Amino acid sequence: MKELKDTQNERDDRQLPIDRVGVKGLRFPIEVRDKGGSVQRTVAMAALAVDLPEHYKGTHMSRFVEALNSHGGCLDVRSMAALPRELLAKLDASRAHVEFQFPFFRSKAAPVTGKPGMMDYEVRFEVEAERDGPLDFIVTVMVPVATLCPCSKEISDRGAHNQRGVVTYSVRFREPVWIEELIDLVERSASCELYSLLKRPDEKAVTERAYDNPVFVEDLVRNVASRSEAHEEIVWYRVEAENFESIHNHNAYAVIEKKLG
Amino acid sequence: MKELKDTQNERDDRQLPIDRVGVKGLRFPIEVRDKGGSVQRTVAMAALAVDLPEHYKGTHMSRFVEALNSHGGCLDVRSMAALPRELLAKLDASRAHVEFQFPFFRSKAAPVTGKPGMMDYEVRFEVEAERDGPLDFIVTVMVPVATLCPCSKEISDRGAHNQRGVVTYSVRFREPVWIEELIDLVERSASCELYSLLKRPDEKAVTERAYDNPVFVEDLVRNVASRSEAHEEIVWYRVEAENFESIHNHNAYAVIEKKLG
Amino acid sequence: MKELKDTQNERDDRQLPIDRVGVKGLRFPIEVRDKGGSVQRTVAMAALAVDLPEHYKGTHMSRFVEALNSHGGCLDVRSMAALPRELLAKLDASRAHVEFQFPFFRSKAAPVTGKPGMMDYEVRFEVEAERDGPLDFIVTVMVPVATLCPCSKEISDRGAHNQRGVVTYSVRFREPVWIEELIDLVERSASCELYSLLKRPDEKAVTERAYDNPVFVEDLVRNVASRSEAHEEIVWYRVEAENFESIHNHNAYAVIEKKLG
Amino acid sequence: MKELKDTQNERDDRQLPIDRVGVKGLRFPIEVRDKGGSVQRTVAMAALAVDLPEHYKGTHMSRFVEALNSHGGCLDVRSMAALPRELLAKLDASRAHVEFQFPFFRSKAAPVTGKPGMMDYEVRFEVEAERDGPLDFIVTVMVPVATLCPCSKEISDRGAHNQRGVVTYSVRFREPVWIEELIDLVERSASCELYSLLKRPDEKAVTERAYDNPVFVEDLVRNVASRSEAHEEIVWYRVEAENFESIHNHNAYAVIEKKLG
Repeated sequence: MKELKDTQNERDDRQLPIDRVGVKGLRFPIEVRDKGGSVQRTVAMAALAVDLPEHYKGTHMSRFVEALNSHGGCLDVRSMAALPRELLAKLDASRAHVEFQFPFFRSKAAPVTGKPGMMDYEVRFEVEAERDGPLDFIVTVMVPVATLCPCSKEISDRGAHNQRGVVTYSVRFREPVWIEELIDLVERSASCELYSLLKRPDEKAVTERAYDNPVFVEDLVRNVASRSEAHEEIVWYRVEAENFESIHNHNAYAVIEKKLG
Repeated sequence: MKELKDTQNERDDRQLPIDRVGVKGLRFPIEVRDKGGSVQRTVAMAALAVDLPEHYKGTHMSRFVEALNSHGGCLDVRSMAALPRELLAKLDASRAHVEFQFPFFRSKAAPVTGKPGMMDYEVRFEVEAERDGPLDFIVTVMVPVATLCPCSKEISDRGAHNQRGVVTYSVRFREPVWIEELIDLVERSASCELYSLLKRPDEKAVTERAYDNPVFVEDLVRNVASRSEAHEEIVWYRVEAENFESIHNHNAYAVIEKKLG
Repeated sequence: MKELKDTQNERDDRQLPIDRVGVKGLRFPIEVRDKGGSVQRTVAMAALAVDLPEHYKGTHMSRFVEALNSHGGCLDVRSMAALPRELLAKLDASRAHVEFQFPFFRSKAAPVTGKPGMMDYEVRFEVEAERDGPLDFIVTVMVPVATLCPCSKEISDRGAHNQRGVVTYSVRFREPVWIEELIDLVERSASCELYSLLKRPDEKAVTERAYDNPVFVEDLVRNVASRSEAHEEIVWYRVEAENFESIHNHNAYAVIEKKLG
Repeated sequence: MKELKDTQNERDDRQLPIDRVGVKGLRFPIEVRDKGGSVQRTVAMAALAVDLPEHYKGTHMSRFVEALNSHGGCLDVRSMAALPRELLAKLDASRAHVEFQFPFFRSKAAPVTGKPGMMDYEVRFEVEAERDGPLDFIVTVMVPVATLCPCSKEISDRGAHNQRGVVTYSVRFREPVWIEELIDLVERSASCELYSLLKRPDEKAVTERAYDNPVFVEDLVRNVASRSEAHEEIVWYRVEAENFESIHNHNAYAVIEKKLG
């Protein structure tokens, strides 16, 4: 049998450091603590990477997967946040980056009848560590909402076009902020929030609420931006809204990104 | 050098004929003649397959690609329809199936100002041939439309939720039907058709038209079904509508499939 | 305030029954019992539908979501299987259909070092009920595998092209079969199974195992078919394999579907 | 009839300029001139946006679509590059950004038999203009390739795992570079390039070529980086490679981004 040579450890002379090398598209069970105190089990799509100095031929891909699996069969937020530092050590790197994106659920009561239904959102954690530096942590929520067009309402004798849109809202923060708080902030910024379960009195209520609160895609991102600037813990935000226009086969979108303070 | 043995031609003794074997995910330029008489060049995603009798170990995958490329760098409808018979001969098969899905464009005038804008649709051709049998040809159009909820309009003091939906409409026919005719049939069945370009007077018109023509997803498929049954050339149809509800994060859908005559 | 009229309950005179009407794209937490006896929590994408007789204008969409939410915040296999009968009653339908697709995890030991890593698969349940008829239950597993080309191995002086493929394997059964058993059956049918964690001695082992077990996409579906036919509980199967060819930018695929006994 | 008020033109007092607002997901026919001199017609997915000063409530979405349609039913590279400046004028903006992503085809001869087959690639143009500033133009090619693992080859007695990967390679340049030149540069950096049509002698050749040229994902990005640094016209590049590992259900990836000179 050949000796199992460590090809990755060979020297590379091309003088080209690599910004990021690692694994992508790895699914893993995780658990996330709710604002309500209970623990939600869900499934994340993960990516893990480090930088690679110019003199190494390759990184050791299996160590990323070992790090992921070293916490048992399920990761929680604390272990996700700790992963980049573990990678720095395990892979002798100077920068490490991890990403976890997963569906997150809230039970939401219908606005009039109060009937409960599970609403789903996408959430993403991105954590980056540098040797001897502080952690960089970005939380992103993707929140589906309803938007009703102010122009259409203004110019039409009856009705107004409205549609589903999705707001992708990312923040950096001083002290951790609950996912639920970020979702609430976005939902309050739209024409109306969405529900999975609506009976007729609820449908009447959300139809009228949307009609009474028209927002352009521009208003939507500005509403989220205003609330972000008023928030004590948020030090940076990026908000993108995309409306799946009901009168077109294309989408309207708008973006604001800003560092605060 | 080894002789290049034809492994595929070896005998298989498992007594398992294969229903369909071939290639998928192949992109190829095509051209489609408009109802208006001009030729539209676009790009299709193709799949080509044949059946395989039990005694052959494998098919010859490269022959599918050769057949596709044997018509020059671009296929037209006539060559797409002829492909299954060529595959029967080239691969000594008893059944052959090809699929081509591609974006199709129409210049559409805005309803009031008449300003032109290109609207895009997805179209799919499926052609199947059996040795000594007739060709089976299915044309599918995927048409984005606006739907406005009759219940929401009825129960609400103002407004009505509406959204983009997509209708996937497939037909078999006696004599060929224009893609444009199928698209028109679907667009007339919705609350309002979509446009890529709308100025303010147009937006007013489509908002009011949708408000005046509320349809449930059930109405939408029944409207398409009724028109199909009244159409002289259509001998089979399948219509599926899916509405990207503006009040939910899930979709409503309905399906009718029927053989006529 | 207007009375909240039940528009859906109105009479429709178009004489067009609807084959299937319902909701799609609804995510919901579920739990699945492992063969090992522990319970795995994961997230499903759900679709629920019923048929609609010709004289009703519409179905009641909110009842699907109520049915889904009526089992608490998480569904297990028993409640998924019971859903179609509940829909028959709640919606006065004669046919009901539900689908749940979700990631499923297994901890798998690397073949030489025995190091554990979580492998993910997609699983789908489809359950259909007819009034006074038996339940129809289809289980589908989507299993990623490695395939090494027999022809490339045979004709080349060194090496052989290989790639990731995915096998989509559906069964109907007499007595329930474990998801793990279906996955094992597929993994044994490929050139080599996949692992999330492989150290160097493991990588050597899987490389050589794949090289020693070349399979065409045709062999792969036939291997799965043979094992299905030998299985006591399986009464129907459909197997489709798709190889993401490493020498092409398109995929090879093959399908066998068969009713047994 | 109400006067059709221009709601978008109203004043906004939230003091929040918007970085980018516009349309997304718009498909449009385009034509691209080949290195060989002939014109290739294909279909792009487009996005167009401008910035919006804080005192405007909204942009005029229809003007983006008018700009797109103002060049007739098909755009060429010259008109795509001119669009941002037109948007600056039409929308009174200070920054404008357009993106077009489309499939691009080359007829490629098989390496031994010389048989021709169409290979498809994805290409993206991003053009940004600032009032009184120079144009910023980024060309991206997404090139599918084969990669064979050096470690697997080194440690295994026979065979080596290999797979399809995709390289996403973006450049800024002094003088325009042909799309074909960028594709060639990437294809030469992999274990082997891909072909749509390969007969047995060709398959033998590419299998052996890949086996003789093993590259890690790290080697692949470094090979592209080296060639970029040696290229006279390239002033910035970003190269990302992602390998769809044939031994795992996840992908390996690596990225280098660099400004030159």
